[in-house]
Amino acid sequence: MIQKDKNKRLILVTNDDGVQAKGIKELTKIAMLFGEVIVVAPETGQSGMSHSVSLSNPLYLNKIKSAPGLTIYACSGTPVDSVKIAIHNILDRKPDLIISGINHGSNASVSAIYSGTIGAAREGSLNGIPAIGFSLLDHSPDADFTASVVYAEKIVEKVIQNGIPAKTCLNVNIPNIAKEKIKGIKVCRQTLGKWVEEFDFRTSPNKKEYYWLSGKFSNFEPEATDTDEWALGNSFVSIVPIEIDLTSYSVLDELNKWEF
Amino acid sequence: MIQKDKNKRLILVTNDDGVQAKGIKELTKIAMLFGEVIVVAPETGQSGMSHSVSLSNPLYLNKIKSAPGLTIYACSGTPVDSVKIAIHNILDRKPDLIISGINHGSNASVSAIYSGTIGAAREGSLNGIPAIGFSLLDHSPDADFTASVVYAEKIVEKVIQNGIPAKTCLNVNIPNIAKEKIKGIKVCRQTLGKWVEEFDFRTSPNKKEYYWLSGKFSNFEPEATDTDEWALGNSFVSIVPIEIDLTSYSVLDELNKWEF
Repeated sequence: MIQKDKNKRLILVTNDDGVQAKGIKELTKIAMLFGEVIVVAPETGQSGMSHSVSLSNPLYLNKIKSAPGLTIYACSGTPVDSVKIAIHNILDRKPDLIISGINHGSNASVSAIYSGTIGAAREGSLNGIPAIGFSLLDHSPDADFTASVVYAEKIVEKVIQNGIPAKTCLNVNIPNIAKEKIKGIKVCRQTLGKWVEEFDFRTSPNKKEYYWLSGKFSNFEPEATDTDEWALGNSFVSIVPIEIDLTSYSVLDELNKWEF
Repeated sequence: MIQKDKNKRLILVTNDDGVQAKGIKELTKIAMLFGEVIVVAPETGQSGMSHSVSLSNPLYLNKIKSAPGLTIYACSGTPVDSVKIAIHNILDRKPDLIISGINHGSNASVSAIYSGTIGAAREGSLNGIPAIGFSLLDHSPDADFTASVVYAEKIVEKVIQNGIPAKTCLNVNIPNIAKEKIKGIKVCRQTLGKWVEEFDFRTSPNKKEYYWLSGKFSNFEPEATDTDEWALGNSFVSIVPIEIDLTSYSVLDELNKWEF
């Protein structure tokens, strides 16, 4: 257990691209402006791992840095495993904030459902800890985070001032354009849409047939102007508050009319 | 591509316990009462895989049964991969219904967030297909599904009659008690709660330290009577409608007051 100075703000940083990704290094620098930082992140890329946890495999932790104000662990599991093990086995008190990312690639619209970055933030929220997932709309490993860090810092500061309403985490996406071209920040709802899959069918050298999952995003409401996809397409940083209660309240009444 | 008789109802069955689990065999029998059945399910157990997809690994499909009215595939990926590959690469038309389970173990309350059973159902809903996840509150491989099949059949029949409102799938949990003791079906909201982790720390024979994730569920609102945990604890089958839009609408206004 790491003993943390109780007077200092404690910030847990994680991601789904792995502890060595450029995006988490940028996010760690931002976290260090605001408090004592502990990074616990997957040792390898865990994109698309959603809210998954390791129930059938043991977890290994590897401390890779221990410096004043910054400790870094690689975890063999998923982003959500990383948050769980940080909270329950590494830290001796709840972190004041969890930030996840900066993801290399969009987590807007329904991508939030598949995202390990957002899974980790949601796990924070399930534990009553304010949590934010950050993503830049650029998949490349050497993505340029210049604009992202400016906006991530602004948003972290605001969350430290205001908190985040209970049972909610924030899904922040940043357009892949120059800092000067970003028009500001928009609070949005999740765009309705889906990934249209195009499985790539191949044959291995030993003649085994296999498929690669690929696809492209289809926006079901391209005209709507209150969505995250609209904001991002119009040069805004998007913030979608994400709910941990999955209940579809609007259909409870409808279902109650069914007679079994 | 399997050519399906367009006049026949087409039902896709999947799960997260793997294609050989007892629960999916029971669910397949129910599906066969209502139409042509295709089973596409993970070849191994995928509990706790949530909505994860395989982005870094190829997928293999293995056809393990082909009989009139019933075709079964094992998929090397997750429950959501199984649904995607079924819809996009195996079937030549959208299934009329997706049923997932019957899971060995509860997916009530926040367990729905971690569940591969519910991930698969939600993927159906994202694709505009009515989908239901079924779970029995018994983890054992030889769980007794006698009561479960009665209620699963009732609910499948009702969904075929009524459909499911758009952007929603159903999370059905069944108490592990005798059929005669079940009092009926309750439409509920997701109980607020969380898993309290207790990582089990061990040392391997080669002296490497590792952790096993374990824990127990903590109900934050044991007095509430409109939740799935209450229903299950009081001998009812619970149905929670699950929303695919993660937006927390109630906090949009609050966030819009923030000045960046």
